[in-house]
Amino acid sequence: MKKSELRQNKVTKQWVIYSPARRKRPHDFGGAGKWHSLPERDDSCPFCPGNDAALPSVIWELADGEGQWQVRVVPNKFPALTPGGELSRSQEGLYLTMQGHGRHEVVIESPLHNRQTGMMPLKEIERVVETYHKRYIDLMAEEENMMITIFRNHGARAGTSLMHPHSQIIATGMVPHHVRWREEEAQHYFDEWGRCVYCDILAQEQKEGARIVYENKSFTAFVPFAAEVPFEVWIMPASHAADFGSISDIEKEDFSAALQQILRRLHLKLDDPDYNYIINTSVRYRSGEPQIHWYLQIRPRLMTAAGFEIGSGISINPSIPEEDAEFLRDE
Amino acid sequence: MKKSELRQNKVTKQWVIYSPARRKRPHDFGGAGKWHSLPERDDSCPFCPGNDAALPSVIWELADGEGQWQVRVVPNKFPALTPGGELSRSQEGLYLTMQGHGRHEVVIESPLHNRQTGMMPLKEIERVVETYHKRYIDLMAEEENMMITIFRNHGARAGTSLMHPHSQIIATGMVPHHVRWREEEAQHYFDEWGRCVYCDILAQEQKEGARIVYENKSFTAFVPFAAEVPFEVWIMPASHAADFGSISDIEKEDFSAALQQILRRLHLKLDDPDYNYIINTSVRYRSGEPQIHWYLQIRPRLMTAAGFEIGSGISINPSIPEEDAEFLRDE
Repeated sequence: MKKSELRQNKVTKQWVIYSPARRKRPHDFGGAGKWHSLPERDDSCPFCPGNDAALPSVIWELADGEGQWQVRVVPNKFPALTPGGELSRSQEGLYLTMQGHGRHEVVIESPLHNRQTGMMPLKEIERVVETYHKRYIDLMAEEENMMITIFRNHGARAGTSLMHPHSQIIATGMVPHHVRWREEEAQHYFDEWGRCVYCDILAQEQKEGARIVYENKSFTAFVPFAAEVPFEVWIMPASHAADFGSISDIEKEDFSAALQQILRRLHLKLDDPDYNYIINTSVRYRSGEPQIHWYLQIRPRLMTAAGFEIGSGISINPSIPEEDAEFLRDE
Repeated sequence: MKKSELRQNKVTKQWVIYSPARRKRPHDFGGAGKWHSLPERDDSCPFCPGNDAALPSVIWELADGEGQWQVRVVPNKFPALTPGGELSRSQEGLYLTMQGHGRHEVVIESPLHNRQTGMMPLKEIERVVETYHKRYIDLMAEEENMMITIFRNHGARAGTSLMHPHSQIIATGMVPHHVRWREEEAQHYFDEWGRCVYCDILAQEQKEGARIVYENKSFTAFVPFAAEVPFEVWIMPASHAADFGSISDIEKEDFSAALQQILRRLHLKLDDPDYNYIINTSVRYRSGEPQIHWYLQIRPRLMTAAGFEIGSGISINPSIPEEDAEFLRDE
């Protein structure tokens, strides 16, 4: 790839520019290395054990044999959405508004303030995944939640202010255009070819191999062909499944192992970079559909989206997906 | 607005969450105040006069009476796209690729290294606008350029590394989904109501007044009803016009005056915040269409988009558009 090349994301139809002139090597990005100096406990951290008075309440927790909680779910103290609103839309002239109905929860991933997710033992990652699944099922049981977004913001560049390891869950009473668009593109593909586009992507990735980072029995982790940012990774169930909620106990183990491997490699090889991850899954009423396929998407925050990206929706990625995959492939 | 509220962007149909629990006052954001300490000239800056050897070439310049260039257009030294590629698409299995054809130019806005765009006299802003227009017309004269994006990245959080005041122009040989989507939504509205959605937005904004920041004879600047970030401002021609290229000389003066006012107020009232601005205009073949309306969009970078935004496309804005407009309204 000497001149720059554009690649289309098969799932969203977005194009990405790969520019050799803007190319960087992995060590040119440089993570933040935040993990060196934190204490095990911080008196001012609302998520540390013993500081429970700062929490609005506890929704759910997973304790060890001695009664110490290991993972905890609490309401977000500064919620973007709160339950109890109307789901109807109202008009203000030509504009539409809705009440801010929804749920906004925090998953505290460890009692240890300085426990880095990237260095967590498998057992602890499994507890986090178990918690995601539990909350997903419980929130989907509330009829008014149309979509559950499970995500993690790691580091300041990824939008978090608290260092204590945590992720978040937001349930909304509507499905945004962005998600509907992804689903419609999958529907178009299904109408054209009769197959799930994600299953076809997975088949091509497995055949080519160049972008695969890690595989186990039920999950494949790869750098997508049209990755929008350096070292973007998708962790996808190898068998067709629209709904994260349908994950089995054995799959949870494999999913945790894949997540652990990817977070660990990012942590060690890129010096603890800031990142976001998101579980992209089906919305209510589409969980059984043959064209949707859930996956976890990790986006390291090594670059800054600028004016061109905002205006055009085209990302400029200085990294080459095949090289990123190779860099992350060895443990 | 006590509970949180969702608002729909009429142009993109995206929803935005306004959350009082996450609310901040203007001074809580805090700009970077980058303008205090820069020298007038920097020997290591490739854009400073006298350092021309570092420039690949000069595409165009606007000089004063004494022959000193005042605004200059040069090729980007690290171009995302370069001219001469094929526009055809090729298939790699189920994926699509294209050669990276296009143009990537830099507009050096002043010979002074420390000239802050936010503090520029009107005459200088007019030169920059004149240059945008000139390059827009020239680049549109090349048949293979399908879309011209003019944008400015101000400050590190907005994605720039060079402090010398500059903006950029990228011409692409394709129209991305993101832009087509905006155009299709405008088409739907036109098919439904027979009017340009932007003209209708402008009419409602003028009637309500609460989100208007600045107006002159041919331009209106306002905080959009569903602003995705704090202090987002759109500067829109008051009369219907799809194409930035069609701007008249008198309109250029009014546009420059509006741009100067908004940049100045952001600079002074928010301590020189990082921001991006983008001119959203019609693409080739759509410049005469009755449903498209060009505008300049300014997005201060006071917040960080995180996992929820990436996954759902829903922004969480802690600011209230009416309050932002009021804050920016007085000079």
